Amino acid sequence: MRLTNQLGTIIKTFAPATIANLGPGFDILGLALEKPGDIVEAKIIPKKKVIISEITGDKGKLPRDSKKNTAGIAAREVLKLLKTKKGVEIKLHKGMPLESGLGSSAASAIASAWAVNLLFGKKLFKKELLPACLKAEKLAGGGEHADNVAASLLGGVVLIRSYEPLDIISLDYPKNLFCVVVTPELTLSTIKARKVLPKNVSLSQVVQNSGNVAALVTALERKDFDLLGRALNDEIIEPIRAPLIPGFYKVKQSALSSGALGCSISGGGPSIFALTQNLKEARKIGKEMRRTFLTEKIKSKTYISKINSVGAKEVK
Amino acid sequence: MRLTNQLGTIIKTFAPATIANLGPGFDILGLALEKPGDIVEAKIIPKKKVIISEITGDKGKLPRDSKKNTAGIAAREVLKLLKTKKGVEIKLHKGMPLESGLGSSAASAIASAWAVNLLFGKKLFKKELLPACLKAEKLAGGGEHADNVAASLLGGVVLIRSYEPLDIISLDYPKNLFCVVVTPELTLSTIKARKVLPKNVSLSQVVQNSGNVAALVTALERKDFDLLGRALNDEIIEPIRAPLIPGFYKVKQSALSSGALGCSISGGGPSIFALTQNLKEARKIGKEMRRTFLTEKIKSKTYISKINSVGAKEVK
Repeated sequence: MRLTNQLGTIIKTFAPATIANLGPGFDILGLALEKPGDIVEAKIIPKKKVIISEITGDKGKLPRDSKKNTAGIAAREVLKLLKTKKGVEIKLHKGMPLESGLGSSAASAIASAWAVNLLFGKKLFKKELLPACLKAEKLAGGGEHADNVAASLLGGVVLIRSYEPLDIISLDYPKNLFCVVVTPELTLSTIKARKVLPKNVSLSQVVQNSGNVAALVTALERKDFDLLGRALNDEIIEPIRAPLIPGFYKVKQSALSSGALGCSISGGGPSIFALTQNLKEARKIGKEMRRTFLTEKIKSKTYISKINSVGAKEVK
Repeated sequence: MRLTNQLGTIIKTFAPATIANLGPGFDILGLALEKPGDIVEAKIIPKKKVIISEITGDKGKLPRDSKKNTAGIAAREVLKLLKTKKGVEIKLHKGMPLESGLGSSAASAIASAWAVNLLFGKKLFKKELLPACLKAEKLAGGGEHADNVAASLLGGVVLIRSYEPLDIISLDYPKNLFCVVVTPELTLSTIKARKVLPKNVSLSQVVQNSGNVAALVTALERKDFDLLGRALNDEIIEPIRAPLIPGFYKVKQSALSSGALGCSISGGGPSIFALTQNLKEARKIGKEMRRTFLTEKIKSKTYISKINSVGAKEVK
């Protein structure tokens, strides 16, 4: 019987970590990494509900209740979109640290949403899944921020032109751009990282920031590394969040001294990212950033990858 | 004698009007028009001074003192850069209304600076003249705003990534983009238009504006008219300056209803610009905008042109 076959099928998906903001692009730019990322295994169950039967890699920190976990909420929302009377059982394997500024909650939501969509015959396009994943992200981040979600789902570099209506543009970018991400052994909740944000910004800061963000997208589209380095410059959010990350400026300086094009905070932090043009340099930069964190007595983990061009995908 | 020849040579230059801001690009984007523009005639004089011997087209409103007129100040600054012991006599022919939001003071400065540079053998590149013209503009606008100056000098569409250091990027743009500029018979001084500006803007406005400005430059570079229309959207400065222009929203609406991709205030106003993809539509839009101003009992003048790719140039 077809139903039996469906019930037996297990779909396994991967959704990547992401760098939100990218310096001057607060809440509007996101970039997908090749690693790390989350994996979801899912299968159809006959009853219309979402069961999270297992979570690994979270040190027991994430809620198992499907109404309180981004993977669960995203699955529930996608089932609604699919107008099905069936449900899903999911297992979530966290492949990245929580609350590290790498879009952990978004990756779980995206991997789950994509798995559910595949289970039911890939009826929805990726962009159609965005509202479901945003709803999940809202729970985790205290607001709807599409930069992580859209980058993890679609891959590449995304620009959120508008939230209402949601208007997301996939930017072009240099294929030989390497991302170095250093995640210190600190946690910094998205909610805390958002609490320190200024309510208002001076008009001169707006001018400065607009100039940099416009130049940054131009640099990405043109593959102009020199301009990319000059434009990766945020003087609104970075100075405010930097004190939440001990040693931030030292680590940033060590990245720039090692040849990074630019360096800033990934999402709400505490992860710090740097961009560079080749793998050898990326490794050197990562090593120096990690070493600098150690002088502050902070251990850290380094991820080096190109930009992920695929986003959420099925894995075997 | 060589000197006699030099003294006898008259150089005539044209510098175009410009649309600053371009919607969400407050103080960072500028676009050069093919018309209108200012003309400067200049010749070398043996004594190290700047004489403005004639100004036409200004209805007697501009100061003849070379220290108080942007054309005069720019000429003086360029002479300093050239380290010459000679001076210049200049005649300024205003080809556009003053205080209309079309970069009138910048065009005078640029035409003058370019004429002086040509008189002395074109020793300086255009970008080297920028600081001199900015100094002149500062006098007129109550601040250093490079958007008009850079666009008038370099032509095309310019992005000011940074003011300190000055970093100007010439953007690519669709060659079949038409600008419709409607200048009402009202004057609005740059100083007045800047007085109404907010000191601070909310972070959510920053997100919205950054998204639009990043999308706008992407649209220009990609020649994506659809995205251009969606991105030409400013909810920070336009609502504040709109009340200074009677009938603004009606005129804007008439432009959009006639098929304009987008419409906003040119510079500090009161000129209003609209963008469209072909000449026929441009004429229709201009006619409707002018007609709408008339329902407010305001006469206006329309300029229709492509984007000026040359900027300041010698004319015969």
